Amino acid sequence: MALALNWAAKAMFITAPNPRVGCVIVRDGVVIGAGHTQPAGQAHAEIQALRDAAARGNDVRGATAYVTLEPCSHYGRTPPCSNALVQAGIGRVVAAMLDPNPLVAGRGLAQLEAAGIAVTANLLADAAHELNIGFFSRMRRGLPWMRLKVAASLDGATALDNGESQWITGPDARADGHAWRARAQAILTGIGTVKADDPQLTVRGIDTPLPPRRVIVDSRLEIGLDARILQGEPCWIVAAVDAPEKSAALRAAGHEVILLPNQHGKVDLPALVRELGRREINEVHVEAGSKLNASLVREGCVDELLVYLAPSLIGPGQGMFELPPLASLAGKRLLRFHDVARVGDDIRILARFAPTNTDITTKE
Amino acid sequence: MALALNWAAKAMFITAPNPRVGCVIVRDGVVIGAGHTQPAGQAHAEIQALRDAAARGNDVRGATAYVTLEPCSHYGRTPPCSNALVQAGIGRVVAAMLDPNPLVAGRGLAQLEAAGIAVTANLLADAAHELNIGFFSRMRRGLPWMRLKVAASLDGATALDNGESQWITGPDARADGHAWRARAQAILTGIGTVKADDPQLTVRGIDTPLPPRRVIVDSRLEIGLDARILQGEPCWIVAAVDAPEKSAALRAAGHEVILLPNQHGKVDLPALVRELGRREINEVHVEAGSKLNASLVREGCVDELLVYLAPSLIGPGQGMFELPPLASLAGKRLLRFHDVARVGDDIRILARFAPTNTDITTKE
Repeated sequence: MALALNWAAKAMFITAPNPRVGCVIVRDGVVIGAGHTQPAGQAHAEIQALRDAAARGNDVRGATAYVTLEPCSHYGRTPPCSNALVQAGIGRVVAAMLDPNPLVAGRGLAQLEAAGIAVTANLLADAAHELNIGFFSRMRRGLPWMRLKVAASLDGATALDNGESQWITGPDARADGHAWRARAQAILTGIGTVKADDPQLTVRGIDTPLPPRRVIVDSRLEIGLDARILQGEPCWIVAAVDAPEKSAALRAAGHEVILLPNQHGKVDLPALVRELGRREINEVHVEAGSKLNASLVREGCVDELLVYLAPSLIGPGQGMFELPPLASLAGKRLLRFHDVARVGDDIRILARFAPTNTDITTKE
Repeated sequence: MALALNWAAKAMFITAPNPRVGCVIVRDGVVIGAGHTQPAGQAHAEIQALRDAAARGNDVRGATAYVTLEPCSHYGRTPPCSNALVQAGIGRVVAAMLDPNPLVAGRGLAQLEAAGIAVTANLLADAAHELNIGFFSRMRRGLPWMRLKVAASLDGATALDNGESQWITGPDARADGHAWRARAQAILTGIGTVKADDPQLTVRGIDTPLPPRRVIVDSRLEIGLDARILQGEPCWIVAAVDAPEKSAALRAAGHEVILLPNQHGKVDLPALVRELGRREINEVHVEAGSKLNASLVREGCVDELLVYLAPSLIGPGQGMFELPPLASLAGKRLLRFHDVARVGDDIRILARFAPTNTDITTKE
């Protein structure tokens, strides 16, 4: 199954909005076929593994298929994989986890079992879940997985008060950050960051056939048409008030303007998260300033923090989140550390909000 | 040697100002004797291991002694261990590292070699160095190893602006903090912390026959005689100006007042570090507020940060270090991450200043 997960990881940047799935077919401890999901509309992992076995002249009858997600049992853009496994004569199927869609979960395996195939589920399920955390979030909640990245000194500064922020972390952490950008289907930032840093927010150093959509929260449509972020692939600009001339110019340049006002004349951030889910965005990578970061946290729109800490002290400067002061420590926002790693000279921390913060469907 | 290091670690809290040393005697892959340094003036590790072998009826002639520090070759409070090893007929000695004192380094092993014993050095030297980092610092620089502890939220707050700081980290991190206090020979704090939190700064939950000396930086001798820190073991209060009545009262209560003014009417912190070294303090554990923390960092008096990060966001509040603002990121203070670990729900980071910051002997 670990091998199947490796195959699934090879599909990291190509399958969206579908999940990344790997399949390894084994007989007598020998891998006789392997594959991963192809771009949407093309073959799933099981089909690729069966084709691979056939191409290598291997007989899969009676063999075991390890697959990182329960095989599909329905006709979507492709025919169901469970049929193909039955027809090929596979003897046993081991799935890392069930399909997250409650309407489907277990049906694929049940169909295999009914055809006389031995089935097992929940092997390395946690790792399989992490690989497609955004897809599962969208299937279960209708919402993308919202990951917010910050880079700071050990004492928590993300920039000097004069705005200087290049560079706090080292080249390895910055390259790692591009890998996280690349696995997202959208990169979200705010007009403040566009004005201050004029970033491109593209993926560099990683080959991505599906570059993530850049999404800019810009309540009053203040973005300049010469902003670097607008010069490449089309962006989505999310505003609270329309400015017809600016909108027309943005649309003429190939971008889309989305109006999502809340009662305070700002962008309705929870509505934006829902809209991104509706547009089949699995994972969102947020790279914004301390103001938008804080608004997203306060409005329960963040599932996970991706924090890079550099081995330096900066002292006063901009913080990670411009949150309001607390009256008591009892009001602190709780996370749990999911993963801690050294990346070059820096530390990378993945921290997740407690479910009460992340379950934003309950706020609708 | 790993076993010998384990034995050395058992001596963590009892040998100061001497180093923690372990010795394991092995014949044909079997441990026939083991021991660690006893309190100062009593037996060293090698003697303990020889005694252990004798008590167990084991013949050490021709056996190999693994010792975490080069055996001493001089008469101090006890006779030289090298003599005892020769007399016992030990066949081979493996030392994790040489004696750090440049006047002694290598002499112990040379003496053994001259007596026909095979010697090897530098096996697991890094681990052996960490165990006695303060002793080696004092031998080499005349200065204790200065370790500064802070506990903060992931966004870098150590307390609310109203001073509330209990608790940011969890019980496991707090217990771990007591273990770091216990291995120090002095705990350093400032009058600001005494006034704000009225802490005891004692070691709790760990049996310490040699409780660390509490040292309070109190430039104007403002400490109240009823402060909780003054109610137990004697403290050292370090001032910049004398207040004869207060001094007399403190001395009458068993405490010592040390006057170390600098030109600005504050405590001369580098002079304090030197004084602590002169008083045979190997490791200093600093637990202070952001002002004294920053002064210690700015004056090059900190070797290592011991940072606990909690999985929470606090927003505005007190930071780790009240440093002056930087004009440019080029002025940031550089560290390197030495160790990162999960402790309960929190993260513990050991970060060390680059040698230019820590080599405070050059500032004399």
